[in-house]
Order: sequence, then C-alpha cells, then structure tokens
Amino acid sequence: MDLSHQIGMQFESREEVRRAGLHKHSMAGIGYDSDGNAESIVISGGYKDDLDEGDVIIYTGQGGQSRDGGSTQVKDQVLERGNRALVNAALNQIPIRVIRGARGDKRFSPQTGYRYDGLFMVSKHWFEKSKDGPLVVRFELRKIDESFYEVALENFSETTIGETPVGSINPVRKLSNPIDRIKRDPTVVKWVKALYGNQCQICQTTLRTPTTSYSQGAHIRGLGTPHNGADTTSNMLCLCANCHILFDFGAIYIDSDTFEVHNVVEKSKSTLILNDNHKLDIEAINYHKLHYAGIQ
Amino acid sequence: MDLSHQIGMQFESREEVRRAGLHKHSMAGIGYDSDGNAESIVISGGYKDDLDEGDVIIYTGQGGQSRDGGSTQVKDQVLERGNRALVNAALNQIPIRVIRGARGDKRFSPQTGYRYDGLFMVSKHWFEKSKDGPLVVRFELRKIDESFYEVALENFSETTIGETPVGSINPVRKLSNPIDRIKRDPTVVKWVKALYGNQCQICQTTLRTPTTSYSQGAHIRGLGTPHNGADTTSNMLCLCANCHILFDFGAIYIDSDTFEVHNVVEKSKSTLILNDNHKLDIEAINYHKLHYAGIQ
Repeated sequence: MDLSHQIGMQFESREEVRRAGLHKHSMAGIGYDSDGNAESIVISGGYKDDLDEGDVIIYTGQGGQSRDGGSTQVKDQVLERGNRALVNAALNQIPIRVIRGARGDKRFSPQTGYRYDGLFMVSKHWFEKSKDGPLVVRFELRKIDESFYEVALENFSETTIGETPVGSINPVRKLSNPIDRIKRDPTVVKWVKALYGNQCQICQTTLRTPTTSYSQGAHIRGLGTPHNGADTTSNMLCLCANCHILFDFGAIYIDSDTFEVHNVVEKSKSTLILNDNHKLDIEAINYHKLHYAGIQ
Repeated sequence: MDLSHQIGMQFESREEVRRAGLHKHSMAGIGYDSDGNAESIVISGGYKDDLDEGDVIIYTGQGGQSRDGGSTQVKDQVLERGNRALVNAALNQIPIRVIRGARGDKRFSPQTGYRYDGLFMVSKHWFEKSKDGPLVVRFELRKIDESFYEVALENFSETTIGETPVGSINPVRKLSNPIDRIKRDPTVVKWVKALYGNQCQICQTTLRTPTTSYSQGAHIRGLGTPHNGADTTSNMLCLCANCHILFDFGAIYIDSDTFEVHNVVEKSKSTLILNDNHKLDIEAINYHKLHYAGIQ
C-alpha cells in the first residue's frame, strides 16, 4: 500500500485515519512497528507544550501524567513504548508519518477532523523538567523530502529477514534541500583532538587509518536548539565515533564530581581520561546528564 | 594574517603566491602543515588526468613518475607526504586553499600567472590504475562556503596545545548550500542491520543505547561517483561506527577468497562474521581492496 498519494488528505475521525492505514491506534498518539521503531504520530493539541512551526514540530512524549483526566505530570517520562520508538526512529534514521488534528496550532492544522501531512524525521530528542517537576521527553521532528527514497516509506515497517530487499543497482543522485547548520570554530575541535592524540577519553581507543589517527570532537551540551551549547574546548570531549554515539544518545553520562563515566545500559563505570590543560564545563556536564541521559 | 580577502587575487608567479602566504612551496603542488594536514594545492595542468569542473576538482596525487621529465607512471603512488596530507585533510574535515595556474582548464583558470580561488574540502579519495599500470591516488575537492566558519580558515594551520582556542559561546546558525545526495532504499540497510542484530561484522561490537542497539550499513563499493556502487544487500556490511570509518579509509580490507579481514595499519587479521543468508558481491570486495586500500 503506497500512502504517499494521500498526503494532504482529510479524515473526519481517528477511526478513518486508522482504516486508511496511516496510524494504527484509535487513541494513542505514537504508533510503532514490532521492531520498536515509530511509524506515525498524531498531533492534536494534547500537550500544551507541543510546538508546531509547520516544517518543524516539537512533540512531547507520553506517560507520567495523572490519571484524573488532567495533564499534571506526576512521574518522570521514560524511554519506553512510544517514546522509545521515537528515539529508535531517530537513531535508525527512519521517517515517520505525521497526522495533524483540528485542535493543534491553527496555522498548520485542519479546521475539522484530521489530515495526513507526510513524512518527518525525528532529528533530536531530549529530557526536560516539566512545569510540575518530573521529566518529560521532547522530540524535534523535521519535514523531509520524500523524493530521496527509492521506495514508499510509508510501507517501510516490519523487517522480514527471509526476504532480501532488491535495492538499486544504479541509485539516483539528487540535490537536497539546504540544511540548517551551526557555524563552528575548527580550531576548537582541532585543539581537543590534538591534546589527546585522538585517543577516546572514554574507552581509550585510538582509531588508526593508513595516514593518521582519528577521533571526533563531541560537544557535551549540543550546539543549536534546544541545548544552545558553546563551541568551546570546555564543552568538548575527544571521543571515538562509537562513544560519541553512546554519549549523544544518553547511554553514557559523566559524574561532574568524580569525572567517572557511567554507562547506564551496561551498568558499568570507568574513569574519564582528562588532561590537566583541559578544563571541563561542570554545568555542561550536569546539563548533559539531565537532558541527554534523563537523570535528575 | 587573514587571506580570505585575497580570493580572486592574481599573481604573476609561484614565488608571488608563496610570498602572499598562500602556498609554501615554489615547485611542489601540495602544501601541508607540521601536523600532516594539507593546507593548499596548486592546479596548473601538470597531470593530464586532473579534471576541473569549477566547484568540483579531481586532483591526482604525487609520486611514482619517471625521472626523465616525462609523466610516465612507473611506480604505485602511496599515501605519503602530500598525498597523506590530503587524506588527513579529508578525514579531519579541514578545508584547503586552491590556487589555479594558467595551464589548467581554460574555463576556470586565469589567462596568465596564478589566481587564489578560495577554500575547498577534500570530499573523497581513491586509488585507481593509471594508463601505465601502477596505481595513482585521486582526490575529489569541493568548494566550500567559508561563511560557515567562525575564523579565517587560512590561518588554521599548526596546532599549539599551549594556547586554548577561544571558540564561541553563541555559535551562529546558518542555512547551508544544497548537498548532493544519493537516493537510497531504506529497506536494504534495515535488512542488513537486522540480519546481524546490529553486531559489527568486523569487530563484533554491538553498541547499546538506552532504547535499542545500533549499527551502520556500510556500502562496500561507495554510492555515486567515482565508485558507482549498488545500493543492495550484497554491497553492504553491518558495521559499528568505528569500523565503518576504518573500512572507508582503507585501513581494513576483506580478502574475497577467505573472507578474512585484514587491518593494514595494525597488520592483523580476523574473520568476517557472515550470515548464510547474506551473499556478498565478490567484485565489490575486490573493488574495495584496490580502490580504497590501494592494494593490487
């Protein structure tokens, strides 16, 4: 079933949306496949903190609200069910369908019922304190250009190992839309990488290529919205590519008192390699622990 | 010394170019700093296989030619000196200055003398057989938008660990130029990653985030020019981010007879994890060994 021709189509009810194959639930806002990757979301003004800018949506995760029908946040949201599925879609770069309902932002929502608005990529997620205190998870979604993909992405759901996908012998080249980027100072990352000789401050790996050694400069508190971190050496670690991913996705955080590295998935601890000339920004480290790892 | 205002400036001789601080040699085509990263190249029609398309340049590496003043390739080019420096600039994402001479492509070269044409990024490099037989290294350079950087990149040379760079507390956001991308089939990468449960086929690492495990689908023979590989499961490996970099930069190749993984830097061998349902493209494996690792 190719759903791409249905972009812009209107529906009177959630049930109609469900029957069209666009969103599998009649109530829940986040739909996901059996691999645990999000497929679709419905935005209809349920969370007052959601933000709709048309091509960019800030969407609040599910869970932890009081059961009295109100919207008081009584418990931390966690990365389970729909929230986990949205994080996985971000990590695996899997686009999701967005359906807008009439109760959303007037500028971008249908006047009545629901409308299918095409595919978005989950570009970021982070934890933040709700007004009530407990943590909520927030997701940034960005509209994508569907013409980049060879297949109808709406059908890109459960994996079947048995069937090998055909792919493409001559994939087509195409010019993408401009991408939002942050200006940065290349001397900052160069300095940090040189200070550690490209050795990962977390796992001590030094990747060696035929011509040099290699590492990445990882911002502790990310540049740009929502984190607005600084592009400075005190907000940067020298990491291997693997630890960079684990750090950005909150598998790893640093204790700002002891500089111990905590892996929350493996439940293990190690010590951060830290050069005396490298003064780390304690606030940035605590910011990362709260907003990336979701630990208050 | 900020050289950015000199873009488009003309010079009568290589010596003038040198005195302006744009290129440190009077003869050699590739200039590099003491860290071994390329700083600048001069293009002036020296290699008949060079290709100048204005914003994209294909540049041939140095070495291995006969000493009789001719341009017969008598030995394989290797990743040393200037060639090594251009690879390092690619790996470290360091832009280089391009100076064009009058003997280059008429469409983009000055009528006489030399002209400074701004900054380019080394976007790719690969080995290929010269007409004479031995291997040459070729580099793809792409013009970059200098406004992405906070500092004058021309000054971005030797690292001084002693001085901490200032960086930027509020780095600026900006829209980049459109990027050339290859359309791909997301089911291909999803299938390969699922087949191995996100375990790296080379080092057996499985990266675990709080919500899932993570790997990357690595094309053996790259998509797009110059390799024009297929977007198919037989041209893809499931790798961790670290092994993906080592594979793409030719530190690792696979023996297509034994499926042994050779690390040419560590001079070590291991066995590729290979699922019976995953038929690899032998030609692609041999292509990678020749064009990425430079081994005939």
